[in-house]
Amino acid sequence: MTNAWTSWGATQPELSRRARSLLRETLGPLTASTPAPLAEARLSPSALPDATRSRLAAALGGDAVRTDAESRARHAGGQSYEEIVRRRHGDAGAAPDAVLLPADAVQVDQVLRICSDDGVAVVPWGGGTSVVGGLAAERGGHAALVALDLSRLDQLIDVDEDSLTATFQPGITTPAAEAALAAHGLTLGHAPQSYERATLGGYVVTRSAGQASTGYGRIDDMVVGLRMATPVGELVLPAVPGSAAGPDLRRLVLGSEGTLGVVTEVTLRVHRKPAVRRYEGWMAPSWDAGREILRRLAQDGPHPDIARLSDSDETRMSMALSNTGRATRRALSAYLKARRVDSGCLVIVGFEGTKADVSHRRRGVRAALRRGGAVPLGARAGNTWEHGRFSGPYLRDTLLDTGVLVETLETAGEWSGLRELYDEVRTALHSSLGRAVVGCHVSHVYPTGASLYFTVLAAAEPGREIEQWTAAKRAANDAIVAARGTITHHHAVGTAHREHVLDDLSAVGVDALRAVKERLDPAGILNPGKLLPSG
Amino acid sequence: MTNAWTSWGATQPELSRRARSLLRETLGPLTASTPAPLAEARLSPSALPDATRSRLAAALGGDAVRTDAESRARHAGGQSYEEIVRRRHGDAGAAPDAVLLPADAVQVDQVLRICSDDGVAVVPWGGGTSVVGGLAAERGGHAALVALDLSRLDQLIDVDEDSLTATFQPGITTPAAEAALAAHGLTLGHAPQSYERATLGGYVVTRSAGQASTGYGRIDDMVVGLRMATPVGELVLPAVPGSAAGPDLRRLVLGSEGTLGVVTEVTLRVHRKPAVRRYEGWMAPSWDAGREILRRLAQDGPHPDIARLSDSDETRMSMALSNTGRATRRALSAYLKARRVDSGCLVIVGFEGTKADVSHRRRGVRAALRRGGAVPLGARAGNTWEHGRFSGPYLRDTLLDTGVLVETLETAGEWSGLRELYDEVRTALHSSLGRAVVGCHVSHVYPTGASLYFTVLAAAEPGREIEQWTAAKRAANDAIVAARGTITHHHAVGTAHREHVLDDLSAVGVDALRAVKERLDPAGILNPGKLLPSG
Repeated sequence: MTNAWTSWGATQPELSRRARSLLRETLGPLTASTPAPLAEARLSPSALPDATRSRLAAALGGDAVRTDAESRARHAGGQSYEEIVRRRHGDAGAAPDAVLLPADAVQVDQVLRICSDDGVAVVPWGGGTSVVGGLAAERGGHAALVALDLSRLDQLIDVDEDSLTATFQPGITTPAAEAALAAHGLTLGHAPQSYERATLGGYVVTRSAGQASTGYGRIDDMVVGLRMATPVGELVLPAVPGSAAGPDLRRLVLGSEGTLGVVTEVTLRVHRKPAVRRYEGWMAPSWDAGREILRRLAQDGPHPDIARLSDSDETRMSMALSNTGRATRRALSAYLKARRVDSGCLVIVGFEGTKADVSHRRRGVRAALRRGGAVPLGARAGNTWEHGRFSGPYLRDTLLDTGVLVETLETAGEWSGLRELYDEVRTALHSSLGRAVVGCHVSHVYPTGASLYFTVLAAAEPGREIEQWTAAKRAANDAIVAARGTITHHHAVGTAHREHVLDDLSAVGVDALRAVKERLDPAGILNPGKLLPSG
Repeated sequence: MTNAWTSWGATQPELSRRARSLLRETLGPLTASTPAPLAEARLSPSALPDATRSRLAAALGGDAVRTDAESRARHAGGQSYEEIVRRRHGDAGAAPDAVLLPADAVQVDQVLRICSDDGVAVVPWGGGTSVVGGLAAERGGHAALVALDLSRLDQLIDVDEDSLTATFQPGITTPAAEAALAAHGLTLGHAPQSYERATLGGYVVTRSAGQASTGYGRIDDMVVGLRMATPVGELVLPAVPGSAAGPDLRRLVLGSEGTLGVVTEVTLRVHRKPAVRRYEGWMAPSWDAGREILRRLAQDGPHPDIARLSDSDETRMSMALSNTGRATRRALSAYLKARRVDSGCLVIVGFEGTKADVSHRRRGVRAALRRGGAVPLGARAGNTWEHGRFSGPYLRDTLLDTGVLVETLETAGEWSGLRELYDEVRTALHSSLGRAVVGCHVSHVYPTGASLYFTVLAAAEPGREIEQWTAAKRAANDAIVAARGTITHHHAVGTAHREHVLDDLSAVGVDALRAVKERLDPAGILNPGKLLPSG
């Protein structure tokens, strides 16, 4: 399942006949397509020089240096629409010249030294789930490029049950990390949609935010210590709870996207496993009303651990496409009928903790929802959401087969400008794509603002899929910048946002990052072309 | 009062006869001393070149470029024991060659350009409250040095009541900022002991933590956007609630201590003014028991906004020295008598919020305290603490006059190692100083650990005050590093900790910071000798 060639997993949901006809009705004619099998992937011969290959094999063992077509094709880019479309067309031109499988931090360090010496570009590789081109095989002027696959660095190294911290190797997946922690009665609480495949090291370098970030925080807030291998030596930031010993360099690693080094160990805050988990659905009368409820909860409490608000288009879309959403659909219909309104916005709130704590917070949140005009859909709607929380990428594959362009993008902004940000991005996407469904939800709330997560469906234009989406994405990016949103809330920069990162960091900030990169990676081998704007 | 020459403020508390005799009894003979008046301060003639002076006067106006002895002497270093002792001896050798008073961000930018061109070192100056040599006039090879006093940049620029953010100029003091926010029904909630004199810009660049950090967070958590003037241009980081657009460069400014640029504007998270504030005192049976109560509260909640735990030595010391502590003293005596124990550890918990929220959290915290064996001293003990929370520096001046060496230092560590860290630092200080009182309190709690704040009293050795403290401080620093604490939790690095910062950041981390500094400050004029280790 992991490193699947064109699909997210081994299974794929089917669309109901109702959903199919609704899609055609909304998007227009759809042209079904079938992905090319891995065996037919087209890629160039490996350009890794023999001398480098020998040095790497001596350091890692011959089996850990793979140049066969299958290994390389399986590492041909990440999970952006553009990359998937290319692979579905059989194009593995984005493949690295070799895949390296180091066994430990010492071997990672050796790889960086050898590749620095020999001028070979290195793309650090975790779960392969980047949706912003963070794994693209950009050689940055070097003759060859290797994928540094960290899947063998997959261990829980240490648990400190007094301090509630756990130290992991970077290549461990979330389910494996949670299973290891569960043996200690602990949990990490980090659950983005890529949960099943993404790795902890990947979360750190891309500044991931999980679905329960309101309660557990972003990965930024969880990192208490780390080690990173760089071409000039090891960066060691010990686990301390709080410090004023200069700038917090953990935050320089968070978001560095493999351009400064390779995280080889990370110490994260963990939690005692909650006794109670409750999720429930509500229907807010409008996008504005729902947003106002979430704003006041984020600022004044009590805080749910999960707080999401879909706009009416996304509410309708998810009802239509979800096979498990019948209960919610029925509740929605009843709600609409009773209230005599023609739209509603789905709210999901979730609580995890002790019985007393959940009960107290839930009471306050429910009162706030009622005051804001929302009506309860019950626990079933919440559990339906919880059950399907990682299913989006599987459904994506089904939609691609059906001929639908499907992609997501996200931003964040202050509460005072959120409505304008929402309007501008939606308008830009609709203008670019014509007949399309653009759904949006508030996915993460903060006291000062929130993120907006857009899902886009349109009829794919066969043969022009990439141009079609590139134009829409550019329009959305420009709208985000114009409305003072951040260019990315949790998908990271990669190649997709590198030209817009200036608006978030300013030219002086980009220069500061370049200075660090030049000092730590003087040969410029680490993930060339990512994060920093060209030129 | 601000920029007093040797004292914190215009008033000084008197020690009771009881306190005086207790001090002599504990510390041995004390030699009283009187600080030299400002008019007798000894300092060298200003070394600012005439050409530079003219350029600065043309940019800022003649009155904003001060080279008179009084202005210079008032900027001769900060509030560390060493610096105060020097000034009390009439030594203003640490004075800058001029004090500049820019009126706005444009003038700050002009100062940086002129000083870069002319090779004049610049010490950015807020409230002058650094206790780690952060304001020391180290010229770093330059012929002259100016203090860039930001006291005229003291305005609240903007309030966003929807997003609960406020944008300030850097030179505003906390009381002025709180007064400006109060007009909007808002509060910042940042209250370190330097509250009355320190500035918001100073908090940002030193990574300050206030007494209510458990509830309101460190300043690190409050900064949502900022502008910083650098010799190569302006760093602009817009206010966004959360982002994955590369590393969070706000965190590179936080803790940069004026070595990378001068913050000219900062947007901070603010809060609606709490309806209820409650502080209360408890007595824990032991340091271990008290620490365990705070650990579980920090990890599992409910969270008080203020949580402090004094060890038994500090509990006794503060009872003895406090003029307002009679109620607490009586309660302690009654407690000790009733429990037949010969020591206790004072706990202060505080709550700020709505009535319902305070009531809920207070109930849970009180239950946890009782379960841990603590007994209540009532609201009076809490209010006594609250009343005296900013009085420490005033009392310091009285103690110095009395002949007492008095200084503080702080660290932080994970819960699992906190007892060892505490023991090692205490032992080091006692070994170095001989007859001394070393009190300690847990001042800030986090889920993964806590800070330890030590207050040291000893009989000052007349004529050898600085050597005496330097040796003790070195011993404490070494003990902190050996026990894996951070070299500073909220006092910052300055000159006092620059050689130990390697243990927190590692050599590669220090190199990364050097690279940023060289890029943003190519002439090396910004606060030379601070933060980064020599060589």
